[in-house]
Amino acid sequence: MASTAGKVIKCRAAVAWEAGKPLVIEEVEVAPPQHNEVRLKILFTSLCHTDVYFWEAKGQTPMFPRIFGHEAGGIVESVGEGVTDLQPGDHVLPVFTGECRECRHCKSEESNMCDLLRINTDRGAMIHDGKTRFSKNGQPIYHFLGTSTFSEYTVVHVGCVAKINPAAPLDKVCVLSCGICTGFGATVNVAKPPKGSSVAIFGLGAVGLAAAEGARVSGAARIIGVDLNPSRFEEAKKFGVNEFVNPKDYDKPVQEVIAEMTDGGVDRSVECTGSIQAMISAFECVHDGWGVAVLVGVPNKDDAFKTHPMNFLNERTLKGTFYGNYKPRTDLPGVVEMYMNKELEVEKFITHSVSFSEINKAFEYMLEGKSIRCIIRMEE
Amino acid sequence: MASTAGKVIKCRAAVAWEAGKPLVIEEVEVAPPQHNEVRLKILFTSLCHTDVYFWEAKGQTPMFPRIFGHEAGGIVESVGEGVTDLQPGDHVLPVFTGECRECRHCKSEESNMCDLLRINTDRGAMIHDGKTRFSKNGQPIYHFLGTSTFSEYTVVHVGCVAKINPAAPLDKVCVLSCGICTGFGATVNVAKPPKGSSVAIFGLGAVGLAAAEGARVSGAARIIGVDLNPSRFEEAKKFGVNEFVNPKDYDKPVQEVIAEMTDGGVDRSVECTGSIQAMISAFECVHDGWGVAVLVGVPNKDDAFKTHPMNFLNERTLKGTFYGNYKPRTDLPGVVEMYMNKELEVEKFITHSVSFSEINKAFEYMLEGKSIRCIIRMEE
Ligand SMILES: [Zn+2]
Ligand SMILES: [Zn+2]
Ligand SMILES: [Zn+2]
Ligand SMILES: [Zn+2]
Repeated sequence: MASTAGKVIKCRAAVAWEAGKPLVIEEVEVAPPQHNEVRLKILFTSLCHTDVYFWEAKGQTPMFPRIFGHEAGGIVESVGEGVTDLQPGDHVLPVFTGECRECRHCKSEESNMCDLLRINTDRGAMIHDGKTRFSKNGQPIYHFLGTSTFSEYTVVHVGCVAKINPAAPLDKVCVLSCGICTGFGATVNVAKPPKGSSVAIFGLGAVGLAAAEGARVSGAARIIGVDLNPSRFEEAKKFGVNEFVNPKDYDKPVQEVIAEMTDGGVDRSVECTGSIQAMISAFECVHDGWGVAVLVGVPNKDDAFKTHPMNFLNERTLKGTFYGNYKPRTDLPGVVEMYMNKELEVEKFITHSVSFSEINKAFEYMLEGKSIRCIIRMEE
Repeated sequence: MASTAGKVIKCRAAVAWEAGKPLVIEEVEVAPPQHNEVRLKILFTSLCHTDVYFWEAKGQTPMFPRIFGHEAGGIVESVGEGVTDLQPGDHVLPVFTGECRECRHCKSEESNMCDLLRINTDRGAMIHDGKTRFSKNGQPIYHFLGTSTFSEYTVVHVGCVAKINPAAPLDKVCVLSCGICTGFGATVNVAKPPKGSSVAIFGLGAVGLAAAEGARVSGAARIIGVDLNPSRFEEAKKFGVNEFVNPKDYDKPVQEVIAEMTDGGVDRSVECTGSIQAMISAFECVHDGWGVAVLVGVPNKDDAFKTHPMNFLNERTLKGTFYGNYKPRTDLPGVVEMYMNKELEVEKFITHSVSFSEINKAFEYMLEGKSIRCIIRMEE
């Protein structure tokens, strides 16, 4: 055990004191892990749209001060009572959703929506005692997604920690904590495009590009990228996208455009924008008889998915997925191995890198639409 | 070859001269089969709702005189030019949809929606030459669904004929031509309930009972029948249905009732009514994480399927099926074998039997809601 085990650690964290205001690097106190918790030393973290969305706090109940961050790679510093399958020194990826291994979802082969540890954006404290492990001068600082990786040390439920190959470079595989697995898994685990098939990807942000990467790895012949922003098309070629559709270029619905390009529809589609119109188009653009559409992007509260039921009767399938159907503890180590075996290419998602003290730059890159993923180096 | 090969056959047929008027047994002329056609001697046929629906001709373009009938068992009398895999004497089931074995759908493992021979309710003649093979005193009589089995002899495209085990009793397996396979296949081929799972069946008519039979054969533990007509519940027990819900008995949506009965939702559901509200309920009553809903019932033209997209994002799947995803020529012989091996119980679907001359009684039984299937004995 490290000499810090069981003690409060003082370390640097990027604290969001107010919605939309630059994070401030502060010295905070991180309490020791309690029952079924582990304390991690974060080495690399990256910024995801979800951090920005909750930092802006538009439409959600604001919860500040808070430490954001949920894509990261780190090393176990110490473990709390009851933790048996992780020990100090293990290389890990914390994940915003979890796997308790005891609920019906965890016991189902098909689901990864753990009853206990499923993503909860409203929770700002640990499940065990409802308290935060972060504080500054006695003031509690809220957690975010159970991970709060914008801190040199953080405390996470053991069910939200994937133990990975220690040979994997954490500055690369840290991006597998969230968006990349979400898109990649949507294609390889859910859409499952056959070799030689056609796949339409709606939205060419990080998740969509990861979905395209999944189609490339699956051997899809035609990967059609759909985006309202044509500046994304050039970059998307690196991820296997070989045809492009900008819905703004046509007077007819994009599903009709795609059906004409593909003799009746694509074999698979993956929707990564969260726009309800894109969801409907993604469903209606798959071929009858065998087409499968997969929804990934998170819709607004008031949206309604609407289509003519004959579109289903004609043997189309519509599925949704959460985190690419990966069970964090069980499946993430295998995704890391796919990277190690050079099947899944992670480097091309990483467009920027900043030191921890420059973390607000990562927010700027994302808000300007410049970055896919920006790595934040915690030790600098 | 029979001595009738190549010649016009005069035989009895039940002709619908007008919408909604009793059929009239007439002597008609049946021309020889042309290219890729076969002429069948029908021994047993049964009545399906689709016959009644088009006979009533409410809302469709009426096409009369017409010979209805599409569930049947018969024997090949003669074959037309180009037919190589059927010969006189073969025992067969004609089917309302077909399998050309050359189109993309036929070549796909997943689809049975043949481009050439897919069901076409508006077609009243043969594909080969656009002419009818039936006439009376020179007046053409329209075909129905390419089968027109309410005739002692009929001409069918070879792609719509399944060759079956000659030991199978045609007075029983004739019901596999349509509704029973539609419901049974929806469950065993598409919903695929795991052993011990829970399945909700919406609509306890012939198709719904066949879907329940599929759940029973699959080893489902809980088979929940949903119907607005409780008089169907007792009969449904024979098909494995062991719990019943009448939506009229509750003030809340039936999907909520089912979710409460099943700790969050059923594992699978199969919708066999065609009511848009039942479709939405069938989808929303499956469990998140792994639930699969299958639509079978045919909706109205103006219906819109509407749900909150989060219901998909939470890892539910919605699929539609046509004819239980069976490819008629490839798969029907195997379904007949399931009956021969006593896995699939066909007898319990057959509630009535009449001689050909009494065919209008079969219509009465169905309109009164008394029958599941009424067999019509052609030779009497
Ligand atoms: Zn769990
Ligand atoms: Zn994320
Ligand atoms: Zn075909
Ligand atoms: Zn039918």
